[in-house]
Amino acid sequence: MILAADNIRITNSIIKGAVDSMDPVPAKDMARQLYAAGANAIDINTGPLTSRPEEKMEFLVHSIQEVTDLPIILDTVNPSAIRAGLGISKSRVIINGFSLEQDKLEKILPLAAEFDADIIGYLLDSNGLPPFDTEARINIAIELYQKCRESGISEDRLIIDPIVAPLLWNDGTTRNMDLLKIIRILPDILGFPVRTIAGLSNLTSGKKDMEKRIILQKTYLSMLSASGLSIILIDMLNKPLLKTAKTCNLLTSEKPFSVFEL
Amino acid sequence: MILAADNIRITNSIIKGAVDSMDPVPAKDMARQLYAAGANAIDINTGPLTSRPEEKMEFLVHSIQEVTDLPIILDTVNPSAIRAGLGISKSRVIINGFSLEQDKLEKILPLAAEFDADIIGYLLDSNGLPPFDTEARINIAIELYQKCRESGISEDRLIIDPIVAPLLWNDGTTRNMDLLKIIRILPDILGFPVRTIAGLSNLTSGKKDMEKRIILQKTYLSMLSASGLSIILIDMLNKPLLKTAKTCNLLTSEKPFSVFEL
Repeated sequence: MILAADNIRITNSIIKGAVDSMDPVPAKDMARQLYAAGANAIDINTGPLTSRPEEKMEFLVHSIQEVTDLPIILDTVNPSAIRAGLGISKSRVIINGFSLEQDKLEKILPLAAEFDADIIGYLLDSNGLPPFDTEARINIAIELYQKCRESGISEDRLIIDPIVAPLLWNDGTTRNMDLLKIIRILPDILGFPVRTIAGLSNLTSGKKDMEKRIILQKTYLSMLSASGLSIILIDMLNKPLLKTAKTCNLLTSEKPFSVFEL
Repeated sequence: MILAADNIRITNSIIKGAVDSMDPVPAKDMARQLYAAGANAIDINTGPLTSRPEEKMEFLVHSIQEVTDLPIILDTVNPSAIRAGLGISKSRVIINGFSLEQDKLEKILPLAAEFDADIIGYLLDSNGLPPFDTEARINIAIELYQKCRESGISEDRLIIDPIVAPLLWNDGTTRNMDLLKIIRILPDILGFPVRTIAGLSNLTSGKKDMEKRIILQKTYLSMLSASGLSIILIDMLNKPLLKTAKTCNLLTSEKPFSVFEL
């Protein structure tokens, strides 16, 4: 399971301040910390970026790539910000992401073909809503795959995000149990070892108590890992969470276990 | 997932002292604590009990049942100690357990029929050794089921223990990943919703560092839970472990989530 840091996000006041004042130091500092913590990739979540979106995305990509060459994940709904990030990035890029919504199919999906980049496809319907059951999820996964192929994007560029449901939703637990199954069966359904990604913090959206958030996230993370999830988007600066992620990788590695590894 | 306490065991010095001096107070105290912690069943692990095995088992069953009517699990290789426990128990009993080893088939399995009790079948071959791969595990599960039926034991009495491997074994991680799959597929293989049980502390046998033991156990417990394990044999007096077990039950419950539940 690849560990992708979700820490560089505009909702983080340090990052927001850095972007507002175009000061690269805080973003560089955080990128260094994420690398030191063992991140395998860094998500850059800029939100919609209503003013000067291209400039701000370029600024963040550039700042981070001054200190690390980890792959980056361009996490925004703004196509021109994604294009700007793709244009400037020196390392491998994952576009985050597209869905069956018309504007995303038209404006975001083609960027993956144009820049030969990986792209995350969300298991959401054409209205951007999460499906209700396994069958609907499977059908959407097949459509996402077909849309990639129609756009000339090779299947190994696709990463599917089944969309972790907030537990505060009435059917959040049911949805998240179905997600485990979906992650497990997708490679068989699609007929190739499709990669999957999940955003762990979604699980506890709206929940304030930090201790409870973390135990819920740790437990569900272990479940995702056992189901064969490829990439987890995670708070890499939360030590207990990170320890669980590393323990998951140790248990699922199927390599001889060493007492010194953990 | 049912929580079965593994705390009443002869290797625990308090329990050993109580058995040696036939003092019911320590066993009663511990049983009270296990009940208060939320145990759904109590395993009584007496080991082989070389001297006066029947008397010692009766003593423990009786002491525990003075304070709780939780189901008990008679955990010993000694058939006459199991018989003694079955004879005296006022609550539901699970025999722990039998395997394809000849003496267990002859002396332990028939007790489940005689006393109409649940019985745990170990996924071990006829020499008492753990099998190497999925196929061998499946074949043994089918044999355990057939032996039950031949002995007139109804299929819903059988609980399969796939035997958690110590991580210190060279292939421990591989075995334990296969176990998750086995737990998931056994109901389909056997054609009925067969129950499964796992002893969590086996995972970290031989590992001294308590903090590492617990994080490994917590992580694998979450994986077992996601795979549909029916019963976990667990240290009910370890709070972090117990919290993870309860979080597993909350996440897998598929019931509307309440912020107050955890």
